[in-house]
Amino acid sequence: MSELRQDRLSGEWVIVAPERGARPRQLKEHGHDAATPAHDPNCPFCPGSEAMLTEILAESPTQTPPGWLTRILPNRFPALSPDAPAESRTEGIYGAAGGRGLHQVIVESPRHDTDLPFMNDESITAVVAAWQRVHGEMIAAPGVEAVFLFRNRGLKAGASLRHPHSQAIATHFVPPRLAAREARARTLYNETGRCPLCEILEFELGEGSRVFLESEHFAAMVPFAATCPFEFLIVPRRHAACFSAVTKEEAAELGEVLRETLRRLYDVAGDPPYNLALETASRGEANSPCQHWHLRIAPDITTPNGFDLAAGMPVNPRLPEADTEALRTATTKRN
Amino acid sequence: MSELRQDRLSGEWVIVAPERGARPRQLKEHGHDAATPAHDPNCPFCPGSEAMLTEILAESPTQTPPGWLTRILPNRFPALSPDAPAESRTEGIYGAAGGRGLHQVIVESPRHDTDLPFMNDESITAVVAAWQRVHGEMIAAPGVEAVFLFRNRGLKAGASLRHPHSQAIATHFVPPRLAAREARARTLYNETGRCPLCEILEFELGEGSRVFLESEHFAAMVPFAATCPFEFLIVPRRHAACFSAVTKEEAAELGEVLRETLRRLYDVAGDPPYNLALETASRGEANSPCQHWHLRIAPDITTPNGFDLAAGMPVNPRLPEADTEALRTATTKRN
Repeated sequence: MSELRQDRLSGEWVIVAPERGARPRQLKEHGHDAATPAHDPNCPFCPGSEAMLTEILAESPTQTPPGWLTRILPNRFPALSPDAPAESRTEGIYGAAGGRGLHQVIVESPRHDTDLPFMNDESITAVVAAWQRVHGEMIAAPGVEAVFLFRNRGLKAGASLRHPHSQAIATHFVPPRLAAREARARTLYNETGRCPLCEILEFELGEGSRVFLESEHFAAMVPFAATCPFEFLIVPRRHAACFSAVTKEEAAELGEVLRETLRRLYDVAGDPPYNLALETASRGEANSPCQHWHLRIAPDITTPNGFDLAAGMPVNPRLPEADTEALRTATTKRN
Repeated sequence: MSELRQDRLSGEWVIVAPERGARPRQLKEHGHDAATPAHDPNCPFCPGSEAMLTEILAESPTQTPPGWLTRILPNRFPALSPDAPAESRTEGIYGAAGGRGLHQVIVESPRHDTDLPFMNDESITAVVAAWQRVHGEMIAAPGVEAVFLFRNRGLKAGASLRHPHSQAIATHFVPPRLAAREARARTLYNETGRCPLCEILEFELGEGSRVFLESEHFAAMVPFAATCPFEFLIVPRRHAACFSAVTKEEAAELGEVLRETLRRLYDVAGDPPYNLALETASRGEANSPCQHWHLRIAPDITTPNGFDLAAGMPVNPRLPEADTEALRTATTKRN
């Protein structure tokens, strides 16, 4: 029997329908490509391919010397650009505006064939440090109202290149989903006097059936109203609205937790494609008592359908508590 | 240079970034499977497989005799079911409710290897008639507040079976996206005194750059703020909030327009996977002056990404006007 569940952070509703898991071919096919070379001479992100990137390196203030662990580059095919007009206008009966903003790429390793679950301590720490640097520079840039750091892993999740990388987009406005989430957090805060995610974390740590990993500074949990199989959050225990507040010690631990949870996802779900998003406060809410940054990992295992298109309600064919159990016990299979 | 566009019906914003079309491997791969048999003995929707469906046929009030053109069946893996409790409840700090509703499948042809663009007049008319019947029965069922008729074409768009079919889900509440769209239409109506889609249609027929097909009763157009490449709407010229208002003459023409537009999509975009949704008024708005039913076709050509996940803003790598031009001229290539 299916049920409806409301996400407390977004206010959005999801249909949890585990019976649908019995359908033939319900999960996308995926698999690890063992034949990937450590370096691909045609990959623009590999060391030795710097010549391909001359143009964008020339305009980049963030060149990285030889021996690099991570590189930060302007996106060559930007969704938003700093020289677009920012003004909104009308086009007949429609609203429109220039696509002003920033779009950068973080190359996460010199190696073409690795990925976050398989990095050593130095490399994974460098990735989190690069995220902190990009986020910090972008949120401080003139006119920027919000920063989105994200990662599309696997061609099926929108990645156009195999080489491990993430992206960051800065907008000159607060986009609708972030605005809605922040407004909802303020409403809940006014009702309860508490940060909603602090409250969720306390509830889930006590309840236990959706938390699958705890460390000193973080907890990893499947949302009560997960929108897709194996969706999970990495939540800092310490309240902070903005990712900029992360300390050096927390950053190091975040790398470890990220690597471990993504490794479990890899083991349990068979290297699925996924989208990862840093959900952090907009500039105006950076010190808010009711916003609370976190990472969201949403495996792109099932596909959107016409019902979600019209109704705006995802159908999750897996029970969030069953996913939690699988992610909790994954590590014992490995050790 | 990219730009931001607001959809007048949904109020949602989209980033239109045609430069991103230059990215390598930006479009999903797809292709027509010429080796598909006319009948597949393992397909539960093919004639002769009725034995596989004994159980659900037994509970179905809508059996179809031999020689059928379309069949209506309960979905074997329902997202919502009529015997679930409808009451909402709290689970700790969370909202939840039983998954009550209806979920049916419309088998659109006895042939396994056909699809809407290739049907003859009798068959395509039968499909629209089946949609009318299912929608009409569902919206009249006790407790039903909204009906969603949809079609997931291609495995990548969520279809689990190749045999041509669509689905319908009836809910005992108005889901969030429909509620938001209806609320927005009321707001615009109060501002302008006009049905928003009547106004859009008039504007677009005058403006011309996003309409690619006109018939006596319908027009097919790409939305100003299309969320993905080749998204389009089929809009009835006559104002009607609810799909139930469609006349026999309009239904026949709708079949023709649907077949022709999907055939053009097939030709232009290479048989892409897509989601089709009937967007029609909720029960309480069935006679509204500001709602206006239509069909939406959203090709699942690109994939969701981490930015859309966090920001709620799709990035469309194609210019809607370029897509319109391609869909407008497609027919001349064929004739």
